[in-house]
Amino acid sequence: MAGVLDGVRVLDLSRVFAGPAATQVLGDLGAEVIKVEEPGRGDEARGFGVTAEVLERLGASPSFLALNRNKRSIALNLKSPAGLALAKRLAGSADVLVHNFRPGAMEKWGLGWEDLRAINPRLIHCGFSAYGEAGPLRDFGANDVALQAHSGLMHLTGEPDRPPVRVGTAGIDLHGSLGMVCAILAALLHRGKTGEGQKVTSSLLQSSAHLMSYFYTDWWLAQTEHQRMGTANHLSVPNQVFPAADGDVVIIAPSDDMWRRLAQAMDPATLDRPEYRTAMGRRTHRLALVEALTALTRALPCDEILRRLGDAKVNVARVHNVGQAADHPQLEAAGAVLHWDREGHAERGVAPPFTLTAAPAEVHRPPPAVGEHTAQILQELGLDESEIAQAGREGAFGEPGAVAA
Amino acid sequence: MAGVLDGVRVLDLSRVFAGPAATQVLGDLGAEVIKVEEPGRGDEARGFGVTAEVLERLGASPSFLALNRNKRSIALNLKSPAGLALAKRLAGSADVLVHNFRPGAMEKWGLGWEDLRAINPRLIHCGFSAYGEAGPLRDFGANDVALQAHSGLMHLTGEPDRPPVRVGTAGIDLHGSLGMVCAILAALLHRGKTGEGQKVTSSLLQSSAHLMSYFYTDWWLAQTEHQRMGTANHLSVPNQVFPAADGDVVIIAPSDDMWRRLAQAMDPATLDRPEYRTAMGRRTHRLALVEALTALTRALPCDEILRRLGDAKVNVARVHNVGQAADHPQLEAAGAVLHWDREGHAERGVAPPFTLTAAPAEVHRPPPAVGEHTAQILQELGLDESEIAQAGREGAFGEPGAVAA
Repeated sequence: MAGVLDGVRVLDLSRVFAGPAATQVLGDLGAEVIKVEEPGRGDEARGFGVTAEVLERLGASPSFLALNRNKRSIALNLKSPAGLALAKRLAGSADVLVHNFRPGAMEKWGLGWEDLRAINPRLIHCGFSAYGEAGPLRDFGANDVALQAHSGLMHLTGEPDRPPVRVGTAGIDLHGSLGMVCAILAALLHRGKTGEGQKVTSSLLQSSAHLMSYFYTDWWLAQTEHQRMGTANHLSVPNQVFPAADGDVVIIAPSDDMWRRLAQAMDPATLDRPEYRTAMGRRTHRLALVEALTALTRALPCDEILRRLGDAKVNVARVHNVGQAADHPQLEAAGAVLHWDREGHAERGVAPPFTLTAAPAEVHRPPPAVGEHTAQILQELGLDESEIAQAGREGAFGEPGAVAA
Repeated sequence: MAGVLDGVRVLDLSRVFAGPAATQVLGDLGAEVIKVEEPGRGDEARGFGVTAEVLERLGASPSFLALNRNKRSIALNLKSPAGLALAKRLAGSADVLVHNFRPGAMEKWGLGWEDLRAINPRLIHCGFSAYGEAGPLRDFGANDVALQAHSGLMHLTGEPDRPPVRVGTAGIDLHGSLGMVCAILAALLHRGKTGEGQKVTSSLLQSSAHLMSYFYTDWWLAQTEHQRMGTANHLSVPNQVFPAADGDVVIIAPSDDMWRRLAQAMDPATLDRPEYRTAMGRRTHRLALVEALTALTRALPCDEILRRLGDAKVNVARVHNVGQAADHPQLEAAGAVLHWDREGHAERGVAPPFTLTAAPAEVHRPPPAVGEHTAQILQELGLDESEIAQAGREGAFGEPGAVAA
């Protein structure tokens, strides 16, 4: 089936998580993505969190492989004039450029929006930075966990009487990746109406602020300084982990109707009390309610709690580890997994977090090796063999003399 | 300035966080958003996590106010045939419909995609569910923390020798909201090319899986069962909180170059050791490295650590609480805050997590009261006063006889 972004050409200068995750979604929607990597090492995420044995066997880290399908790789040394010149030619033929260099770096190289719009006014120039392109922290480096700390998210995560902890995944990076996808799709709509490209930006700071938006509003309007609450939260009760006889479950009943059904399904004698019947009452009597419900869940196996509360249309879920979650049959059933073939071997990865029924995401290419498509991409750009060889002598593909793969 | 989505009409049947957060972004981009609410109570998020005093003063909870600007509200009783008929007429004139009713509910009401495409084939019908529309968990209810538990994210969040904790914000809801925005923008591009609407879907499960994608790939490819690590992570070292003399900072140096600069800036004598010079070496010698760096940070105030490491282009950030984060001047400087006026009072909220320089997000309306625009919206739909009164007698706006605001 035709992808929504068929014919859209993306030049991806980004590294590590947010940018690559964004361009992977664009590729899943049909865009042609050209990933520009540093010769040799490539995207540093290729080596993240992996043992030598696994790296040898897989060729790159799982965190790289999870975020770089549907891309071709060109290895260019942007520090050499010859490499930079090739990057500019590629930008001239692109619909979308994505990068996450520090503010000012692209302009220094002549790859800023103002430089490139002169040769390619339809270009959508997407920059992802740490803290944005202005302000006192503009030049500070950061990554996902730096913004977990800066944004207050870490402060809210953990047990009440213990230090803060990090969110166990790079959620600010990945949320930022969808921020970029939104910006790029919106800019494509704008270009469709006006014929004009534009500069779009996102940042770890904007991503973290969006994730924290209702806490900031609470602070601004009511000066409420929320604290970490273990597995509970301040919005409703019950809304946390409860122990079962053979594991743990979360039980959440934010509305009064759902609470009434919960009380009926578990034990009306102890739960269907007047003081628990309103959301505010349940928050006021949090400790007593949690204690009463715990006494009931502790005696039952997870399956029985899920059956009773599931039947009563009460929100309930089991606490899984990663393997249990990844192998749960619901993941495939919900369309959250994409499959592809690499040299006869079946591979899979997590789909974009949405489904377009008329133009579903598809995987055309497994994640590339560093520079795997360098010569092919340059030939498509119109370079002949002698020009490619000359660029190599000038250091475009690494040290002077390095040849294109 | 003209918004990208000027002229796009969104009928929003969704409640609580993910759907409202998605339609708020659409509104910020210029779409006209009509929020359908239950007469009386309205969106149940209006009462979440708020004291009676704050509710009285603000009119709705901060978490509602954070996610519902740029919308008008119509109060319709979908359980009455008259209310449902009005919802169908509104859907007939919409470009986009968003809902988060349980799988099957919209079809039961005649508001499913197949029903509505017959009267409005250009409609983009966006459904957000808990676990998707098929599979063993299809009919289970869930919310953000249920998917934190189900997805394995909770298992990875917390201290190594303590129970799991929740992520301190509703990150799976908010990430899902951007998944919906991506899907809707992509479907608008598709409609621009083909003239046809489509059904698009997202779910808490897909959102959580996308946030966990690199862990699932690690499990599938290498059977790695990651564990929670407090403020650290498995990808690189150092990458965690360090104590300062007067607070806490996170320090992250994933690349070998950045580590070398960190060692020079802090204390080459104890840090610039051969065994720490490679990413794999730093992971192998994690405990010794963290101990050596802690001995240095403990003696310095936060400002001094930020200055030294900032100057050395090493990733570093302070651990803030919510108020410090919300009031930090960088938030405004990065374009993460939108401002608007409500009856002469300046209000603000967090912007979408991206910036379109040629068509910036704007706020035209503060969050509405329940049903504030019911009569206005129905008049625009072509109903005259007697038809609106008749619908009221038939129970369209609550109990039979309730009148439109």
